[in-house]
Amino acid sequence: MERTLIGETTAKIGQEVLLKGWVNTRRDHGKIVFIDLRDRSGLVQVVFARLASTEVSAKSRQVNLEEAKDLRSEWVVEIKGVVKERPKNLINPKLVTGTIEIEAKEIKILAKSEELPFDTGVETLNVSLPTLLDYRPLSLRHSKNQAVFRVQETIIASFRKKLKDEGFTEIQVPTIVPSVTEGGSQVFEIKYFENKAYLGQSPQLYKQIMVGVFERVFTLAHAYRAEPSVTTRHLTEYLGLDVEMGFINSFQDIIDTVEKVIRSIFEKVATERKADLTLFGATIPKLSEKIPQLKMREAQQIIFERTKRDNRNEPDLEPEDEREICRYALEKFGSDLIFITHYPTKKRPFYTYPDPADPEFTCSFDLLGRGLEWVTGGQRINNYETLLDHIKKWGNKPEDFEIYLQAFKYGMPPEGGFCIGAERMTMQILGLENIREASLFPRDMERIDIKLPKKEETTKK
Amino acid sequence: MERTLIGETTAKIGQEVLLKGWVNTRRDHGKIVFIDLRDRSGLVQVVFARLASTEVSAKSRQVNLEEAKDLRSEWVVEIKGVVKERPKNLINPKLVTGTIEIEAKEIKILAKSEELPFDTGVETLNVSLPTLLDYRPLSLRHSKNQAVFRVQETIIASFRKKLKDEGFTEIQVPTIVPSVTEGGSQVFEIKYFENKAYLGQSPQLYKQIMVGVFERVFTLAHAYRAEPSVTTRHLTEYLGLDVEMGFINSFQDIIDTVEKVIRSIFEKVATERKADLTLFGATIPKLSEKIPQLKMREAQQIIFERTKRDNRNEPDLEPEDEREICRYALEKFGSDLIFITHYPTKKRPFYTYPDPADPEFTCSFDLLGRGLEWVTGGQRINNYETLLDHIKKWGNKPEDFEIYLQAFKYGMPPEGGFCIGAERMTMQILGLENIREASLFPRDMERIDIKLPKKEETTKK
Repeated sequence: MERTLIGETTAKIGQEVLLKGWVNTRRDHGKIVFIDLRDRSGLVQVVFARLASTEVSAKSRQVNLEEAKDLRSEWVVEIKGVVKERPKNLINPKLVTGTIEIEAKEIKILAKSEELPFDTGVETLNVSLPTLLDYRPLSLRHSKNQAVFRVQETIIASFRKKLKDEGFTEIQVPTIVPSVTEGGSQVFEIKYFENKAYLGQSPQLYKQIMVGVFERVFTLAHAYRAEPSVTTRHLTEYLGLDVEMGFINSFQDIIDTVEKVIRSIFEKVATERKADLTLFGATIPKLSEKIPQLKMREAQQIIFERTKRDNRNEPDLEPEDEREICRYALEKFGSDLIFITHYPTKKRPFYTYPDPADPEFTCSFDLLGRGLEWVTGGQRINNYETLLDHIKKWGNKPEDFEIYLQAFKYGMPPEGGFCIGAERMTMQILGLENIREASLFPRDMERIDIKLPKKEETTKK
Repeated sequence: MERTLIGETTAKIGQEVLLKGWVNTRRDHGKIVFIDLRDRSGLVQVVFARLASTEVSAKSRQVNLEEAKDLRSEWVVEIKGVVKERPKNLINPKLVTGTIEIEAKEIKILAKSEELPFDTGVETLNVSLPTLLDYRPLSLRHSKNQAVFRVQETIIASFRKKLKDEGFTEIQVPTIVPSVTEGGSQVFEIKYFENKAYLGQSPQLYKQIMVGVFERVFTLAHAYRAEPSVTTRHLTEYLGLDVEMGFINSFQDIIDTVEKVIRSIFEKVATERKADLTLFGATIPKLSEKIPQLKMREAQQIIFERTKRDNRNEPDLEPEDEREICRYALEKFGSDLIFITHYPTKKRPFYTYPDPADPEFTCSFDLLGRGLEWVTGGQRINNYETLLDHIKKWGNKPEDFEIYLQAFKYGMPPEGGFCIGAERMTMQILGLENIREASLFPRDMERIDIKLPKKEETTKK
């Protein structure tokens, strides 16, 4: 007999079906036992011992009832049964399959489960984040956690789809890199045979090289940051949705591409993940007809006028400023998102293109949404000599950039690109409190699956 | 004026167009200069100084001719010109745009290139593999190298598409792992703050965990092997196309899924990458109606009978055996691919499901193609106690598998999966000699972009 997915049961009223899945919950009423069975397509109620005697003998009904009493949450079972319409007064509007139930005829246990460390048969898991992570294989099975990663899958799929439609080529770039190229000590070192190597902090240099090959490229790349702090919005390993494009007319072309991609993602999530959004009471961020744009200095002036907090000479926006300018964008333009452009040259990486009209500032941007940075990008220097000069001025050694520099030595068009943080976007769309909830197996300074051992207190100051 | 892609020029005869791209080659005939211009959509011939005087003044024609004489390979230019049909005797059948040419009116130089280290305007680059890799940003621009990665993109896209159609969920799993879980010393160590961590040798444990969540999952995962040897078919960082599925009836379900996916990939590559295959004189591997299957012991017997080489008691197939059994499959079944199943339990990882009929051998398989392994997979142990027992027997510590084991402790259906090596498949479809040609930026023991420094001879024995 072929398996029926739970999501297909409502179309098979009166038929005998074979279901396979996990016991989500069990309710024992003595002479009758209910289980909610879960598979990848949803939940359905299965009833034991209500079958009419014409359909199954009293004895086997009794056997099934006894077996059903043994079932526990997360046991894996096969159930043969009949799809029955529920009486109107017993319809469960919270279940997609709430108009029917399965009257069990046979049950086969495929795998048992030990007792659970917490109750999973609830709408929202009532456990702390560390517990959620300590029991990740179990907590991920909960419908709300599943929803997070279905939304993430849709974000990624629509990102790819839109870029393919726009003539981009998907590329695969390495994560082991030969040297530290974007400065800072926040890089992980690898023992690489007799040498040292590092984990790439981004696919930046490789995607730029590939503009020389395919003009327009994108890549999904793991990026690694050895941030020695634990915050609600940083991971040590995260997924970057990276884009780079050549033959741009100006950096506005890049911003316009970001906007196209974001709109396309929002559309897909809104239509394909409606139920998942509802689970979180989440709404797709509001967009005005065009996402507003402000230069960083303009934003600082506005923040000053609104709050009297004077950060007008600061080289960057503080987290507090980012939240304030997002509030402003929503009030003034009805947009949950806003582009901040023209960050100072000194605060951006060496490859950032200085604004010809005012070289103290760059043709760069961040896209802020609901108080947090979602996307960062900009135009890059494509002239070989200028790039070489910047590498030196930023305190780097040109020999560490030999392969990268070749791409410019041998002719590179005006180009730029951007990176969307996949976990950040998932978190901000669903309104999650911690970015760890938006990563299947989040890594931070203190945890790789399990809590890392701490060094003795005495080794600290 | 809007840019026209080179691939669109043949539809614009008589029109003025703006092209952007790289000078692929230049031929200077004194009073007339030809360049082949390259963009992401192809090549087209541009002619300088042939324009009729009605369309552009003699003077500006002369200016353009002088400028064209300065052009060199890989310079990046914008060219305004008129699309002209070529006389029949001047049609170039090797170019998709060979029926037309562009008569240049204006030229603008966007970026210059230094002199090239080798001639790129040839059908096949005439340089050694080390040179190809030393100049990767340049060599990747060559049409044959571009073709390799367009084929790879199609392989990956059709892999995803087919699995989505079959109800699989795409997941993102980490590559930093807390312990060495698949044995061997061939693992890269990372300095992780005050602790040690490692680069995952495969996403195996995570994709298995996720069967407990989404039943059917796939992931594109970078995998890392510290193989202390340099061969034509191994990389230290490669891309695995990983699949895992629950509620299987037997391990034949997994083999059948491999076959579906492979057929789908071959179909897409054959139709969408025809021109790229032609560049290499490559043909899609032949498939019989059903890909043949042999148990390892049966294969060894056949090899013995064909070659008198007696490896019938060996625990694995040697590379020579793999080539021989592929020859056999082609002769006997007309198939370039063959599944070899039932490898010995002791030679497979701890999680492999022993064959109930003969527990010395496993419900595992390799898919061999054209003499090399393309895919490896099998059924996994889903019973918690058995798995725990195997972990110990294989010399591992259960505490290193805490998170993984939870997935089985809390109920896991019968399941299995497989992994396709993306670079291997690209290499084998195109008939490349070295796997490095199928990786944009290949990593091996001796190279990360550039040759790694060797330790002093004196440190060696």
